[in-house]
Amino acid sequence: MRERPSLAVVGATGLVGSEMVAILEERKFPFSEIKLLASKDSAGELYKVAGNEFMVEELTESSFEGMDIALFAAGGSISERFAPLAVEAGTVVIDNSSFFRMHDEVPLVVPEVNGDAITNDTKLIANPNCSTIQLVPILDLLHKKANLERVVVSTYQAVSGAGKSALDELWEQTLAVCNQTSMPTDVFKQQIAFNCIPHIDVFEDSGYTKEELKIIHESRKILSIPDLRVTATAVRVPVFHSHAESVNVELGSALSVEDFVTLLNDADGIVAYPQSDNYPLQLAVAGGDDIHVGRIRRDDSVANGLSFWVVADNVRKGAALNAVQIAELLIK
Amino acid sequence: MRERPSLAVVGATGLVGSEMVAILEERKFPFSEIKLLASKDSAGELYKVAGNEFMVEELTESSFEGMDIALFAAGGSISERFAPLAVEAGTVVIDNSSFFRMHDEVPLVVPEVNGDAITNDTKLIANPNCSTIQLVPILDLLHKKANLERVVVSTYQAVSGAGKSALDELWEQTLAVCNQTSMPTDVFKQQIAFNCIPHIDVFEDSGYTKEELKIIHESRKILSIPDLRVTATAVRVPVFHSHAESVNVELGSALSVEDFVTLLNDADGIVAYPQSDNYPLQLAVAGGDDIHVGRIRRDDSVANGLSFWVVADNVRKGAALNAVQIAELLIK
Repeated sequence: MRERPSLAVVGATGLVGSEMVAILEERKFPFSEIKLLASKDSAGELYKVAGNEFMVEELTESSFEGMDIALFAAGGSISERFAPLAVEAGTVVIDNSSFFRMHDEVPLVVPEVNGDAITNDTKLIANPNCSTIQLVPILDLLHKKANLERVVVSTYQAVSGAGKSALDELWEQTLAVCNQTSMPTDVFKQQIAFNCIPHIDVFEDSGYTKEELKIIHESRKILSIPDLRVTATAVRVPVFHSHAESVNVELGSALSVEDFVTLLNDADGIVAYPQSDNYPLQLAVAGGDDIHVGRIRRDDSVANGLSFWVVADNVRKGAALNAVQIAELLIK
Repeated sequence: MRERPSLAVVGATGLVGSEMVAILEERKFPFSEIKLLASKDSAGELYKVAGNEFMVEELTESSFEGMDIALFAAGGSISERFAPLAVEAGTVVIDNSSFFRMHDEVPLVVPEVNGDAITNDTKLIANPNCSTIQLVPILDLLHKKANLERVVVSTYQAVSGAGKSALDELWEQTLAVCNQTSMPTDVFKQQIAFNCIPHIDVFEDSGYTKEELKIIHESRKILSIPDLRVTATAVRVPVFHSHAESVNVELGSALSVEDFVTLLNDADGIVAYPQSDNYPLQLAVAGGDDIHVGRIRRDDSVANGLSFWVVADNVRKGAALNAVQIAELLIK
């Protein structure tokens, strides 16, 4: 990989894609050129990146010629069709969709956990699901120190995880409640304002949603613990930004709360809140890059149990930032 | 107890107290007379109950003379001071505060679970915490059928659990966000609008909140399983009415999802949602009396595991209705 690669961002006008562009700029990613790709509808729009104006181009089969790295953030069907074309053109693809995540030959990467899954031959790397990304760095620390036996997660997920239209819908529904007018339900199919919906992505026959199964299967793959006992309940809450997770872990050996806090403090990108009454909040961490861990306490209902509360901005660390961090690994 | 007892409601103008009065009327509780008691500030207000107007009286030490049953819903310090006076006056007290709940000699009752804890000699009965009441009838069914081994709960609790001023604060904060004005934070000390707060009641040294410990200790007492392994994380969400709970249980013996649904269907006051994509929502069950159980599925991360989502109106079944149901037991 060149030290100053050329970059393409697919879905550059979407919530995650535009955040990718912003983060590339913030972190002064040393790209030689950047190509903003989107659907025909957005083509021609102008965006300023690193002081220069770029025009959004329509994504086509020939978009990837001469591109070193492509960041995909346009959904599974676009990735399915265009990622192989990009790879064929010699571009390394970092894909934010779920399409390739569980393919055996595709590394699923959270850089601080399993960056070494990427080799010089890797052509396609999958970016995990938002609710997985903020969880696995914590699980990884716990597993390396004290062996993970079982993980129980219940999530409190922001509407931004469902894209721009979902942010608009929470806002419009809230205004509709305030003004006593009728409300749109196009995205959530029901009222999310002042309501929690235990349903993210579609249901499988097992009774689990795909979102829950992503947490289960992706965690196992990223951590390389194929038989990790993990279960999840994924709930959408009326919050704009950042996902929170209530997590209970059972460890193979004892780990004190103090030692867990030390592990967290020693890790990059993680902020620990050792004081009970100083806990991370979705509203407070939105727009930031770190994973925040609070409400850390012993769970005496099981041997070697710990409980905690994990919060991160799902569009940044949970999606765009993690993808950019993968791109940074590629040029190291 | 007389078939048509005289009733006093302490804290009759508060959120739970006024709901008690409404439920007594709805269920045609056969009271001979009713006395609405509150602080001096509310004394003199007029309320219509069962077609008749009643004037709110100031709670005093002599308020309970001639009263058969008193329902207390005015907080722990009022119960601490006045419940013993009521008992001394020969009144049977049903107390919604947490003050007496863990006293050994005081039965803590959810009628469908342990109504038999009340005897003819009982003078004081404690009404459990809202997040406990909606959980234990489900745990009781599971325990009787398949032995409870461990319970992990994460809650999604409505602001109504913190009283009228909390309902106002969520509303005023929401309007403040809409109108970009400054917001009140008197009740929650921070923004609950579009935010989740993992902090209900005060923190103990263990790192648990009192709300979480109530779920743990009260469940054990009501179910008569003193060593039940149960852990909880209690979270306030920006929802007006009804608490939801994500629950994972580990059982001593296998219980299929189908058999669990049958157990739920056979129980009074519980509604089961066997279809994955038809789940109970806080908004939908608000104002109702039942406990709703959905998202029922196997939890394969543990032997004999089940996961589910429990929703109920915390001011009704979680407080006022349960207290009235206890009163109904007394006159049976």
